[in-house]
Amino acid sequence: MVNKNSLLHENERLDDLQINGLEIIQHPGKFCFGIDAVLLSAFAEVRKNETVIDLCTGTGILPLLLSAKTPAEHIDALELQTESADMAARSVQWNQLEERINIYEGDVCTASSQLGRGKYHVVTVNPPYMNDRHGLTNPDLPLAIARHEIRCSLEDVIRESARLLRPKGRFYMVHRPFRLADIMVLMRQYRLEPKKLRLVHPFADREPNMILIEGVRDGKPMVKVQPPLIVYDTPGQYTEEVKAMYGLTT
Amino acid sequence: MVNKNSLLHENERLDDLQINGLEIIQHPGKFCFGIDAVLLSAFAEVRKNETVIDLCTGTGILPLLLSAKTPAEHIDALELQTESADMAARSVQWNQLEERINIYEGDVCTASSQLGRGKYHVVTVNPPYMNDRHGLTNPDLPLAIARHEIRCSLEDVIRESARLLRPKGRFYMVHRPFRLADIMVLMRQYRLEPKKLRLVHPFADREPNMILIEGVRDGKPMVKVQPPLIVYDTPGQYTEEVKAMYGLTT
Repeated sequence: MVNKNSLLHENERLDDLQINGLEIIQHPGKFCFGIDAVLLSAFAEVRKNETVIDLCTGTGILPLLLSAKTPAEHIDALELQTESADMAARSVQWNQLEERINIYEGDVCTASSQLGRGKYHVVTVNPPYMNDRHGLTNPDLPLAIARHEIRCSLEDVIRESARLLRPKGRFYMVHRPFRLADIMVLMRQYRLEPKKLRLVHPFADREPNMILIEGVRDGKPMVKVQPPLIVYDTPGQYTEEVKAMYGLTT
Repeated sequence: MVNKNSLLHENERLDDLQINGLEIIQHPGKFCFGIDAVLLSAFAEVRKNETVIDLCTGTGILPLLLSAKTPAEHIDALELQTESADMAARSVQWNQLEERINIYEGDVCTASSQLGRGKYHVVTVNPPYMNDRHGLTNPDLPLAIARHEIRCSLEDVIRESARLLRPKGRFYMVHRPFRLADIMVLMRQYRLEPKKLRLVHPFADREPNMILIEGVRDGKPMVKVQPPLIVYDTPGQYTEEVKAMYGLTT
């Protein structure tokens, strides 16, 4: 038995994931997951006997949620920043999921060299969204690295995802609408053919602020655009679909 | 004065376009415009002193609508099929718009050779959507040519559009969501950078069945995805936004 108290460090907190009794260790003000991770975990399809690699895993929210929401046989997860990777590994221990989840510290830019080519059925990734450096006074700060393409570009993410996947393996990414052309061009270039796209709108009549995209390794060209995913019915009030994703059943 | 009666041939009918008193000559069962043309005419932005070329113009619905909805200085339009081009030219005469609209018979695949490179501020196009030939028993039929990529491919349309446009000229196309990756990849390839995207949903909770896209010749990468365009409130009942596009004010 692990001594659970030793896993939670000073100033960290435990957040209830509302599913299977899971909890995640987070540090307020540093690495806290957002709705994008929850939406991605609901969008990704993982079948029985399949293995998953989650890139840019941060504090490990995706592997934790996927372990509960899908029948994934095994989930690996990669994180560049030591502090986040350490927190993710402690959350895995805290939830006694060491047999299903492995956290690796490493660089997404060389992920396929570190973890192996053509190995996974599924890649999930919630990468840095921003391709500019406006207003970045300190690009070495952990939050800057998590949000901006400082240590990895969108091309790195897509290229390594394609290499990590088996033939017909599936790629799931959450990103921002303004990068949609870049995303589709790079996915086509690295033979991760875009197959499903869902736009996430804060309200039904508003422009989308996130996109969820599925690619298939060497898939045939044909995109299925899904119905819009609406987050709020009224300010502060999640739609039924999003409540269900958070495990907030009414 | 033109003898109006000579312009309308047997079995043709006149349809009221609900704007500026415009009417269009159509042949029921042959070349009748659809909602996609109306949506495209509302999506395209044409400013004062700008010239437009409408490709795959069919019976000329786009130039007619753009003449009324925008301050376009001049609108050229190109159509491959003689019968449609002839009907379009007669509609221009019927509406006495010969000074603002020219209809050309010609092939979109060689449009820039016929009409001139770098000449237009705006391209609009409602091209054939389908890239398969399933169920096409007679690919020479006019309707098959209008709907399937038999005589021109998506790549022909995008390449020629890029060539026809001046630097920073704008490209407006209506198409199907399933081609979105093809569209973005080809637009990037021919330096028509995708800048605006609007998805058209028959109902608010349904998947989109059309897309409207704007590209800018040599534009910077950055897509603005707009709020969804919803066609029907309830079956048969257009939303206020679509009613306004049809000139059906309440």
